Amino acid sequence: MTYCVGMRLNQGLVFMSDTRTNAGIDNVSVHKKLFRWDVPRERVLTVMTAGNLATTQSVINLIDEQARSGDGSKSILNAPSMFRVAGLIGKVLRETIHEMGSEGSEGSSAFRATIVAGGQIRGEPPRMFMIYPEGNFVESGPDTPYFQLGDAKYGKPILTRAYRPDLSFEHAIKLLIVSFDSTIKSNLSVGLPLDVSVYEAETLVPGPTRRFTESDPYYQTIAKGWSQAIQLAFDSLPDYSFGDS
Amino acid sequence: MTYCVGMRLNQGLVFMSDTRTNAGIDNVSVHKKLFRWDVPRERVLTVMTAGNLATTQSVINLIDEQARSGDGSKSILNAPSMFRVAGLIGKVLRETIHEMGSEGSEGSSAFRATIVAGGQIRGEPPRMFMIYPEGNFVESGPDTPYFQLGDAKYGKPILTRAYRPDLSFEHAIKLLIVSFDSTIKSNLSVGLPLDVSVYEAETLVPGPTRRFTESDPYYQTIAKGWSQAIQLAFDSLPDYSFGDS
Repeated sequence: MTYCVGMRLNQGLVFMSDTRTNAGIDNVSVHKKLFRWDVPRERVLTVMTAGNLATTQSVINLIDEQARSGDGSKSILNAPSMFRVAGLIGKVLRETIHEMGSEGSEGSSAFRATIVAGGQIRGEPPRMFMIYPEGNFVESGPDTPYFQLGDAKYGKPILTRAYRPDLSFEHAIKLLIVSFDSTIKSNLSVGLPLDVSVYEAETLVPGPTRRFTESDPYYQTIAKGWSQAIQLAFDSLPDYSFGDS
Repeated sequence: MTYCVGMRLNQGLVFMSDTRTNAGIDNVSVHKKLFRWDVPRERVLTVMTAGNLATTQSVINLIDEQARSGDGSKSILNAPSMFRVAGLIGKVLRETIHEMGSEGSEGSSAFRATIVAGGQIRGEPPRMFMIYPEGNFVESGPDTPYFQLGDAKYGKPILTRAYRPDLSFEHAIKLLIVSFDSTIKSNLSVGLPLDVSVYEAETLVPGPTRRFTESDPYYQTIAKGWSQAIQLAFDSLPDYSFGDS
């Protein structure tokens, strides 16, 4: 499994992904699921992947090769809009799944994968897309300001409650760590380290990245602090009284 | 979908279930999923159901009929232990799914359902079982002190963090409402009202029950209070600083 979140803020975009992959439950590895490309002052693209690792690694290699090749028509570094970037990635994703030999539709095969792609191209605002195994995609907007990949449920309640578009990057990273920590504590197939990538709107240069390991002092502060803070929050609510009934 | 939690405490057992059922997403109804039987001073049994509603209603009717019939060998009111009660319910469940016409194993059919059954029979401590569509079952213990049915993920992080076996019933009901509220806010197919049933260990008489509706003042206090408390908890943690990296 996997857990990734891409988040739109007024300040820009933040991406966080775990790095655990597993084949069955007894074959666990660490693999990067967060990738960036940029053309300085012109575009910054961030891609996160979930699903079959052979598929996602193949897709990342193919779109990287296409970006480096002379053929601009297939390059995510040359596409005129984020919409076209999502279309190019979706096409590679669908074809890759199809080549790996699907039964029925691409989306139902064992080789399926899902991708979040976000960034900014000069002339457009920052945009973010969720790309499905069928190659189609939907865009994030003010009403759906974040996309989750993988095991989204454990970490969703805190996102629902604490997300605001005016969060700073520092606040947003704290929020994401709480969301990831809730997931990691519940699902063995989601695990540290966590990769983070930030893109500040209108800069058109890549923002800071960071890998949080198990021993990272900030990660430990939040993971432990959240358990205590949530206990205090819980204790601050009035207990039920059977007299109410 | 459904969300139900059965919880073991030192004080006894607490059960909470939602009441929403749906056929597709446009046909939503309210149905009870929590049932009790008792023989005063001898046994108290509580059953919660999830899955195909035709199956679960049929199972509840069948075990109720068997309990009222003269044939003690099939009666949950006559079985010598909670283990035997779980076995009787599991048998009815498996046979019901099978009769409704499964393809392949009972567990994979569209008619599948899962049941939590807990209570106490004189001479035993309180016990609780999770009964699967195949008719087999597992027992709750100190290491797995609660069972969740249905959409368990949204509501699990708070259970993981705030559950303690020495919680009072009043604390436990507060905890369950927070867990249910997180689920209801994220999954349209889980909904109010919520049914609660309490069994105080060693009393061998049914404890209080309660139905929480949308307008219930305590439910509203917790649902609103939790959103605020969790915001404060979140704000109390140190923000990330890019200087750390």
